[in-house]
Amino acid sequence: MPISNYIIAVDWGTSHLRAFLCRVNDDKHLTIIDKANGLGVSKVIHSFEKTLFECINPWVHQHGKLPVFMMGQIGSSIGWKETNYIPCPTQLEDISAKCVNFSCADHDITIIPGLSCRLYNDMHDVMRGEEMQVLGWLQQSPQHLIGNHLICLPGTHTKWVLIKSGQIVLFKTAMTGELYDLLSTQSILIQENNAEFNQASFQLGADFTLKSEQGSFIHGLFSVRSKQLFGELSHSQAKSYLSGLLIGSDVRAAMNAQEWQSSQLAQVSIIGAKHLSQLFSQVLKVHGINTKIYPVADMTLSGFNSVYQQMSTSLDNNTPDTSMS
Amino acid sequence: MPISNYIIAVDWGTSHLRAFLCRVNDDKHLTIIDKANGLGVSKVIHSFEKTLFECINPWVHQHGKLPVFMMGQIGSSIGWKETNYIPCPTQLEDISAKCVNFSCADHDITIIPGLSCRLYNDMHDVMRGEEMQVLGWLQQSPQHLIGNHLICLPGTHTKWVLIKSGQIVLFKTAMTGELYDLLSTQSILIQENNAEFNQASFQLGADFTLKSEQGSFIHGLFSVRSKQLFGELSHSQAKSYLSGLLIGSDVRAAMNAQEWQSSQLAQVSIIGAKHLSQLFSQVLKVHGINTKIYPVADMTLSGFNSVYQQMSTSLDNNTPDTSMS
Repeated sequence: MPISNYIIAVDWGTSHLRAFLCRVNDDKHLTIIDKANGLGVSKVIHSFEKTLFECINPWVHQHGKLPVFMMGQIGSSIGWKETNYIPCPTQLEDISAKCVNFSCADHDITIIPGLSCRLYNDMHDVMRGEEMQVLGWLQQSPQHLIGNHLICLPGTHTKWVLIKSGQIVLFKTAMTGELYDLLSTQSILIQENNAEFNQASFQLGADFTLKSEQGSFIHGLFSVRSKQLFGELSHSQAKSYLSGLLIGSDVRAAMNAQEWQSSQLAQVSIIGAKHLSQLFSQVLKVHGINTKIYPVADMTLSGFNSVYQQMSTSLDNNTPDTSMS
Repeated sequence: MPISNYIIAVDWGTSHLRAFLCRVNDDKHLTIIDKANGLGVSKVIHSFEKTLFECINPWVHQHGKLPVFMMGQIGSSIGWKETNYIPCPTQLEDISAKCVNFSCADHDITIIPGLSCRLYNDMHDVMRGEEMQVLGWLQQSPQHLIGNHLICLPGTHTKWVLIKSGQIVLFKTAMTGELYDLLSTQSILIQENNAEFNQASFQLGADFTLKSEQGSFIHGLFSVRSKQLFGELSHSQAKSYLSGLLIGSDVRAAMNAQEWQSSQLAQVSIIGAKHLSQLFSQVLKVHGINTKIYPVADMTLSGFNSVYQQMSTSLDNNTPDTSMS
């Protein structure tokens, strides 16, 4: 790995490319200097190369060729270079060791692979991108490296991640955000898609799910419509109720998951956008679970930082000390 | 009600208008003579009146003005004349007595209202149209008028209907078909939407749901994608697997519903399209539940028939016998 005063970190998901110019401090700690955005993997029209360089060229002009570290769907079958999932349990050292390097227009490019795991019911699960936030979270406290922890990463696909002794043991995906978008815009349930968030309606939806009988999500969803027909919800409240119902179902399933004992969790850490994280926190508290919210951007940078430091350290250790020879 | 040798029965739902010219036999039994189709309630561009008469005018030219009986979304808030839901428990006599009559272009038009009920968790439920199939089913055997029965009407919105002593006691809606359509065409789960049905993949999806932990639908859905990523499902098998997963969830929730004791059901009657009914039957059998399938069109006509006979009988009884006066 060439030594550089700057690196570029790229979080390249399905919908967005988010690039960060980072200064490498003496202790190999990264500081964000500048940010830039581009098209997500599924939206790239020309080549990935062109899309990347259009985004980072101003930095290259200023600082010369810089190492680029990428994570997310860019390493998937629909991305630039497919990287194999690293099977869980896994940890920082494994992930750093299995990064995929290639050269493009004389830039050293590194793709950090995603993770896979196998759940109790023989179902596979996968993530690409969120692992960086989890690695970042592990750096936040020495307490995170001992004992059992559950992390919730809400979003288009919520991820629930089980940590044991600093290792990522397994994780579960719920398509909560994608279902919410589809049902809000395309189903018979919602007439007013631009309505403001309504706290009471959200709570009503969450309570309905949390109190409902076994496996009733598919039988309870229609209440979004029937409550409007009977004047118990206005059209403008219905979307918040649907949000409560979906987040309630997601949290309820997580609390009943056989992969961990929710009763033994002192706290769930939430890494996500502020409002969404607060909604998950609120519903978890109904279950008597304390939460702590961590901002996504900070965790992502911290994760990049730990991978960067780990790779630099490995390189230092593997480089023969020519001064002694 | 004017006496006529013919009547027109119209099943006018959200997506389709299906009209039937029926001959009234001496015993007031109806026989279908001709059929015609038109635009559903949500697709009508001009007026409902114009849409209806374009459809039935050939019959009017031949037979003169005929009584028209309509059911379905045409009686909803987005339809022609909104009719109030009849609250359950209810039965044929109530439904026939609460039909809404009006005159249009000198035709006597009758709209048969939908039904509502309240479930154990205080959730309202509603139906418009399916009640005719249920009334038809009640006519199929004297056994249907005694004891408890559960009817499943699969479709865009599956309805599970509880019958006690010939009364419609309550029912539950699952948005199974709508979720299937949305997830097949708009989500990340399915790449090949036109793939042929695959029985083994359907069974795999149904088994996955039936064997899964409590409330895991929202956590299990992602297996449609992860199984493709790990080569356990081909892109062309994924849609059948999704179908199994959704129908499995629907049936599982029905078997766990608190409104009835599934263990005490000798049989579930299914009224629906042939292939879909067979899929529900298959999944119910895994639960040890016997099923009997009834064709939709036959049940709808039989339901119309029973409402028509009931209304005619009421009218006969209320008409003073002038011959004796």
